[in-house]
Amino acid sequence: MLEVTDIESFFKGDTNIPQFDHYFANQAKAHQNKLTKPEGSLGKLEDFAIWMAGWQRKINPSMDNAYCLIFAGNHGVATHGISAYPSDITAQMVENFKNGGAAINQLCHLADIKLSVIPIDLDKPTNDFSKGAAMGPEETKRAMQVGFDAVSSDCDLLVLGEMGISNTTSATAISCALFNQPVEAWTGIGSGLDYNGFSTKVSVIKAALKLHGQKFQSTENILATLGGREMAAIVGSIIAARLLRIPVLLDGFICTAAAATLTIFDKQILDHCKISHLSTEPGHFGILSCLDKKPILDLNLRLGEGSGAAIASLIIKSSLAIHNGMATFSAAGVSEKIKHASIV
Amino acid sequence: MLEVTDIESFFKGDTNIPQFDHYFANQAKAHQNKLTKPEGSLGKLEDFAIWMAGWQRKINPSMDNAYCLIFAGNHGVATHGISAYPSDITAQMVENFKNGGAAINQLCHLADIKLSVIPIDLDKPTNDFSKGAAMGPEETKRAMQVGFDAVSSDCDLLVLGEMGISNTTSATAISCALFNQPVEAWTGIGSGLDYNGFSTKVSVIKAALKLHGQKFQSTENILATLGGREMAAIVGSIIAARLLRIPVLLDGFICTAAAATLTIFDKQILDHCKISHLSTEPGHFGILSCLDKKPILDLNLRLGEGSGAAIASLIIKSSLAIHNGMATFSAAGVSEKIKHASIV
Repeated sequence: MLEVTDIESFFKGDTNIPQFDHYFANQAKAHQNKLTKPEGSLGKLEDFAIWMAGWQRKINPSMDNAYCLIFAGNHGVATHGISAYPSDITAQMVENFKNGGAAINQLCHLADIKLSVIPIDLDKPTNDFSKGAAMGPEETKRAMQVGFDAVSSDCDLLVLGEMGISNTTSATAISCALFNQPVEAWTGIGSGLDYNGFSTKVSVIKAALKLHGQKFQSTENILATLGGREMAAIVGSIIAARLLRIPVLLDGFICTAAAATLTIFDKQILDHCKISHLSTEPGHFGILSCLDKKPILDLNLRLGEGSGAAIASLIIKSSLAIHNGMATFSAAGVSEKIKHASIV
Repeated sequence: MLEVTDIESFFKGDTNIPQFDHYFANQAKAHQNKLTKPEGSLGKLEDFAIWMAGWQRKINPSMDNAYCLIFAGNHGVATHGISAYPSDITAQMVENFKNGGAAINQLCHLADIKLSVIPIDLDKPTNDFSKGAAMGPEETKRAMQVGFDAVSSDCDLLVLGEMGISNTTSATAISCALFNQPVEAWTGIGSGLDYNGFSTKVSVIKAALKLHGQKFQSTENILATLGGREMAAIVGSIIAARLLRIPVLLDGFICTAAAATLTIFDKQILDHCKISHLSTEPGHFGILSCLDKKPILDLNLRLGEGSGAAIASLIIKSSLAIHNGMATFSAAGVSEKIKHASIV
């Protein structure tokens, strides 16, 4: 496995950053056009198969070794909330993941995805970022390395998720800083805030942005200042996936905010990632507009833990089942006239 | 099995029309709220499970016996197109379905759905409806009966699809008549029309609406005048599913237009049906707005043959996997504080 120094070199614009392979994508597209359906009639399903082909460098891309990584972290900023034992709940949910009782367990079983749950120092919440940086530089790199190392080289689709009480606050602060947006407009109710909780959340984020400013020069710096360990780990996994040419499904708001920190360096660095679904958090719609990314699904989810990404993987799986399993016009004896026909 | 006379009695407002069962829906909702996630955080996935519960009258609804029915029909109006052998293509595609080579075959395999393909008199296209009624009353009833009889009583989710060269023309004519809309705005390119084809399509529909008028007093009458056998069969299946309390996933534009003819009698008659996806056909968006129905997916599909509905069944399957498989707070030992907590 590569070391943290490699992540840094990656950040510095290493020319070996793998890119989408247009040769394989074009081959996959040509294959699509031989299948027994009007050209383009399967819309985004065709696009998804071609996207997978370009990253995997396979005309017939696979989803035989999908992995879901859920990183969990605790946040010092949670002390502002009115929830009595926030850290306990993160740990309890990690136990629930390990015991197979959470939503993501059912979804990974359904979609045949291997699930790993990776708690990072839950007993040591990050610092309250409204009073100082959430993490130190070494702590941040260590969490990134955890995410980097968690990606298996045989993975053909990576589903990323997270768990961490108060991490929508962190994600909102990061998003507002990155895209210079007003805090009120991009703040949501998280897992279910009332009006007082919402006001506190807005105040905390504003205080943090006043303290730290909104301009960050590096991914590591913004993650250290406003992020959390689970978000740093997600960034590490995204980098590893890029180096290994693994397509990635990002879950909702927190995953996307973490991923967006990478665009400080390279606007195209998330080309191997798709946004699984549109979260109900207003900041998510905001980031997606700024990144010009379209979500695969819109199911009003706000759970996290990779749930939306696991469901989106079923759409990718559908696209590959069609791409790899359908008959061609010649094999099926269907007239190609259907392909270009001006059918009324 | 019930006979056509029963369909008629159903139309006449039989008080025994099964309705959504709020008792089971409420029980299912109460169960959802015990699961280890913040209340409502799974958005539409929670709604889908509750919808299934209310129709199936089960607190833990199932999707163990999903069936997909694809009805195929040929249309006399196809002669206006510039496709040389439209009827041949419908029959060739039916062979392709039977041989397992079409998109729907791959999707039914993936989603564990039993697939039946039911061609109806392909060698006898309906009449050109721009010159007279597409079908006679008996012919229409016979096709409805085919659809009615095709629904198995052990089915727990019904996926409906169709195949028929030129049936977007029929669906557009039906939609414009039903909702009194301008033909140009609701007409699309179907499977891939060029400009001349599009103009012909608009002219044909306008001629039909001029000839027949836009006011139809019965489902059978509008189907006979502007529809096709596959659309009449879809209507028959929807009725059978309602009588058997089977939830239904309608595919795209043609399925929805066929289903919409039932609203002449009863605005709530499609409560047991969900719209699987938003087709690229403009008329589909139009009908959905008029019916106040939201599609589950938006994947730019325009294939038909039940493909979007089969994919949407995976979303329903996800919702049930969560509903039936997740741990409750008490079983998992997770503090219920997460449930109502004002989590920042």
